[in-house]
Amino acid sequence: MAQILSGKVVAKAIFANIKKEIEEHQLKPKLVIIIIGHDPAAEFYVQNLEKKGSKIGISVQTRKFTADISEADILKEISLLNDDKSIHGIMIQKPLPSHVAESKIVLAIDPAKDMDGFHPVNIGNMILDQAGFIPSTPAAVLEMLRFYNIETAGRKVVILGRSNIVGKPLANLLLRKDQTGNATVTVCHSRTKNLAEITNQADILIAAIGRANYVQPEMIKQNVVVIDVGVNQIVDLEKGQKYVGDVDFEKCSEKCSMITPVPGGVGTVTTAVLLNNVLKSTKKLTVQDNFIDEKWLKK
Amino acid sequence: MAQILSGKVVAKAIFANIKKEIEEHQLKPKLVIIIIGHDPAAEFYVQNLEKKGSKIGISVQTRKFTADISEADILKEISLLNDDKSIHGIMIQKPLPSHVAESKIVLAIDPAKDMDGFHPVNIGNMILDQAGFIPSTPAAVLEMLRFYNIETAGRKVVILGRSNIVGKPLANLLLRKDQTGNATVTVCHSRTKNLAEITNQADILIAAIGRANYVQPEMIKQNVVVIDVGVNQIVDLEKGQKYVGDVDFEKCSEKCSMITPVPGGVGTVTTAVLLNNVLKSTKKLTVQDNFIDEKWLKK
Repeated sequence: MAQILSGKVVAKAIFANIKKEIEEHQLKPKLVIIIIGHDPAAEFYVQNLEKKGSKIGISVQTRKFTADISEADILKEISLLNDDKSIHGIMIQKPLPSHVAESKIVLAIDPAKDMDGFHPVNIGNMILDQAGFIPSTPAAVLEMLRFYNIETAGRKVVILGRSNIVGKPLANLLLRKDQTGNATVTVCHSRTKNLAEITNQADILIAAIGRANYVQPEMIKQNVVVIDVGVNQIVDLEKGQKYVGDVDFEKCSEKCSMITPVPGGVGTVTTAVLLNNVLKSTKKLTVQDNFIDEKWLKK
Repeated sequence: MAQILSGKVVAKAIFANIKKEIEEHQLKPKLVIIIIGHDPAAEFYVQNLEKKGSKIGISVQTRKFTADISEADILKEISLLNDDKSIHGIMIQKPLPSHVAESKIVLAIDPAKDMDGFHPVNIGNMILDQAGFIPSTPAAVLEMLRFYNIETAGRKVVILGRSNIVGKPLANLLLRKDQTGNATVTVCHSRTKNLAEITNQADILIAAIGRANYVQPEMIKQNVVVIDVGVNQIVDLEKGQKYVGDVDFEKCSEKCSMITPVPGGVGTVTTAVLLNNVLKSTKKLTVQDNFIDEKWLKK
């Protein structure tokens, strides 16, 4: 039977470390989240961030705008947030209304405050192995690998999915010359031929395609490590709506040496790495900021 | 016997197109190359660029500085070039003296004039599949694939090497949803185990590890397409010094359906794609620049 890799303990460890560092350095981290329009799932997620933040010492502030706000006004708001020295992180909660271009919004955020790590400067720095912010989901996968001491060096990692925010970043991160890198990385996607043949070679399989229970036992080899990034809502006749991953957990787990559950796996860690980005940003901006002297740090 | 994929005809086609576009739009493209210190190979390369440029209508200007120039003075020079509207492309020729940090130089160049495509903004845009400049060597590989109609969609591409300027960019580019993309991409490197087993699965093998004649016939399958990015200087007892690729051309070519030679392959195309970047930059900056009216364009 596979070892179930809980995301909760990983998140807990990260939260504890953030809290410790904030207290130790007497920081006042502040994250501002912009929400446009009304979306229950998004609001629930943000409320959760606020709650988590307040427990560990990060002020999470939400600014809500109605769906009819112009793109120009949003860009102006972002510009003010960029300039406000008391704010260390900015996040624009999706979904955005159709008249607001996501690419423009992403470019408007100061890369130093870009908590989602979606700005080209941060993506570029990630590829070039330089300091910057890494998107939450790939970062959460790395934290899982690190926490559970999963060796990646020289091992065959197969990634299902080539999205800009999960598959591609992960491929690049797993090639880095560090503890969670040095892997031999293959990226598969909708155009891949003989997929099962390739996934069957994986020592570590990372699924990020957004298709419920797509990975079946015949696609994986014995003792594979499975990291399931998918979160798919399905209707279960007995239980009603529920969330499942891209991997058929029930059928596959017997064949795996380790597997992440959905829910309670990678997704659980994303909030922690996002708030960890706020900590990193606060430390960097606080040290860089010459206006802030020791007195401020201690007050 | 394999089809030999000459880079010369690819470069020729690109040069012809640049010349045509420059004449058609009456552009005055200008590339400035900074050379610091004395390096015969670098000077030879730059002279070649000047010559090629003058033939197709691109002014290539070299600014030489002695090796004792300070980092601050180089950064100042770059800043002036960034602001100069008559200059459309900037390139810093390597090697740099040890007291000049390459990462700082790369960041100083305006991404809109960054002909090498090394600025994080350009790397990020490349990953995100947005407009920007792509480093010459991966761009040259794509041009080879395009010119020779080599199908990549759904095919297994194995890349040997994970450098920031060749292996990693190529992996991301070959995953794009376009004519030279949609491949199933595997990246191998020094830490890869059972390398020959993986390379033997490749429909297309791209070698970029910088090791002379490293790829031997037993590492490739019959009818593979081989793109050899390596350029390694070796001493041949009969011919003296000569350049060879990462693939043992003599021994491997019989097994391949197509193979690029070294020299005369991918390397030959890099100058063309670099000057093509200058054309692209000129078109973009000329259109954007509100001070330039139709009269200027026609003079």
